[in-house]
Amino acid sequence: MRFFVTGCAGFIGSNLTERLLHMGHTVVGFDNFSTGIKEFLQTAQTFSNFKFIEGDLLNKESLSTAMQTCDTVFHLAGNADVRHGLLHPHKDLEQNALATFNVLEAMRTNKIFEICFASTGSIYGETDIIPTPEHAPFPIQTSLYGASKLAAEGLIQAYCEGFNFKSYIYRFVSILGERYTHGHVFDFYKQLLSHPDQLTILGNGKQKKSYLHVQDCIDGMLWAREKFSNKVNIINLGTAEYCQVDDSINWICEHLKLSPQRNYANTTRGWVGDNPFIFLDCSRLSSTGWKPKKNIQESIVATIQYLSQHQWVLDKRT
Amino acid sequence: MRFFVTGCAGFIGSNLTERLLHMGHTVVGFDNFSTGIKEFLQTAQTFSNFKFIEGDLLNKESLSTAMQTCDTVFHLAGNADVRHGLLHPHKDLEQNALATFNVLEAMRTNKIFEICFASTGSIYGETDIIPTPEHAPFPIQTSLYGASKLAAEGLIQAYCEGFNFKSYIYRFVSILGERYTHGHVFDFYKQLLSHPDQLTILGNGKQKKSYLHVQDCIDGMLWAREKFSNKVNIINLGTAEYCQVDDSINWICEHLKLSPQRNYANTTRGWVGDNPFIFLDCSRLSSTGWKPKKNIQESIVATIQYLSQHQWVLDKRT
Repeated sequence: MRFFVTGCAGFIGSNLTERLLHMGHTVVGFDNFSTGIKEFLQTAQTFSNFKFIEGDLLNKESLSTAMQTCDTVFHLAGNADVRHGLLHPHKDLEQNALATFNVLEAMRTNKIFEICFASTGSIYGETDIIPTPEHAPFPIQTSLYGASKLAAEGLIQAYCEGFNFKSYIYRFVSILGERYTHGHVFDFYKQLLSHPDQLTILGNGKQKKSYLHVQDCIDGMLWAREKFSNKVNIINLGTAEYCQVDDSINWICEHLKLSPQRNYANTTRGWVGDNPFIFLDCSRLSSTGWKPKKNIQESIVATIQYLSQHQWVLDKRT
Repeated sequence: MRFFVTGCAGFIGSNLTERLLHMGHTVVGFDNFSTGIKEFLQTAQTFSNFKFIEGDLLNKESLSTAMQTCDTVFHLAGNADVRHGLLHPHKDLEQNALATFNVLEAMRTNKIFEICFASTGSIYGETDIIPTPEHAPFPIQTSLYGASKLAAEGLIQAYCEGFNFKSYIYRFVSILGERYTHGHVFDFYKQLLSHPDQLTILGNGKQKKSYLHVQDCIDGMLWAREKFSNKVNIINLGTAEYCQVDDSINWICEHLKLSPQRNYANTTRGWVGDNPFIFLDCSRLSSTGWKPKKNIQESIVATIQYLSQHQWVLDKRT
């Protein structure tokens, strides 16, 4: 098959691109390097069935041209900075909602009717139902990131109904693993590298979060695509467990053999809009026989190992 | 108080504007006349505490300037053409989602923190839960109209969490009454005026729909604003009943003393994305003692009476 991957130089996008290439598919990758990293494409570029196009999803014409002759779109590009949404409210709307609209329109122009979309568990806001299934009560958004992904989901669903698209909407927990370049493990590792005896923690360390390894994430996305065939397929992607931020710190420090002083903010949330408990009910996917290979602890340790071995990545993010 | 009303020359907006003026409030009305009608402002313009500003919500600067010194925003402007969304997919996104974002940003600039927003029961898509409460299972969108209103709702909610806004999000059934200028009653009346013996019906006449009179709608909006004081207040607004399209035709024909031949499309939906059964559970609002004054039949008859007495309105819409 011929896949179009937006955000192909990003964390999940570059890993997915390599996986699809290894499976023998052709991949047309699209990225504007706003958060994507050129080095993440090096392996992909050794494949003859990989074609990279530098471009911006807000440029409709170049997007539409780039997508020509593809069969299926993996739309992974987006602003993934949940934490700083309030600093630039337009960014989430533009990068997540408008960009998705442009992807849908380019697909329609090119008669491509299948989209696989990276959404987020943040879309459930601060739900009372934990673990949270896909059919949880209609949520109230608590972040611009969640709101913009919700907008994108709604547009995709409307295109499925109106234009006979088929969609896979994946609601991810936080993803870890190789090429991970933002989030608490990244922040903690970077802090400990510059001052191994001190660690500043947003929130009180009691926030409960779920994580999934990027290779499990890709397994899950591809697996769901094989197993489900509705017009709109919404799939939570996570592990059947959660941890506290403090657990994560313990595992990181144990692995690095460090015992920093922990400086907590002593708030229940790490930032405005931070959800103190994210735990998705993934039984829709697991009922088909899928399960992740790594648990949360293994994913965190694997991430620290990756960052230790690829310290240049740390300089790519402030 | 000093209210800012977007879409003040529209169906609901102009009625709300007059109500607020009669209550002694100051109203700054904003409209670009894309679907608003100048004549609908005639009564409002007799009030000294009414100020009209012609402008477009996509023009951020004029919007922000117009809103200065207001206390509360009623955001009623939007594209309300559910049926033709697929003909111009960009329109719903632009007029409902982007316009709402601009309203929120203009509010933030002007330090206005309360928004009352006209959303829609279409947001529930084709839910299995009927009557549908506000906390129905996370819906799947079936129209660009619903998707764009969902996007707007999410943005408003994120602003409530992130910027301490307070919001009233009203999910309306279809609204009828004076100044009603689109929808099936309008279409049927217009048809019967030009050929009283023939009536073409989109769908099979069995679609079940709910309606509310515009004055009840305004009562409900203002009542909810008094009774609820959460950060985010989501309120279904409808009657505790529904009717079939055929019932509506019977009432219209009875009132007009006509017996046209009915030509059905014999599809379960009037158009792609048409929801064959809309019936909202309005107990959140009714539990506070509110109830509409008119039932559906009375609302339909009142609408026909209005159209009969204001036939110039028919020429305003093709």
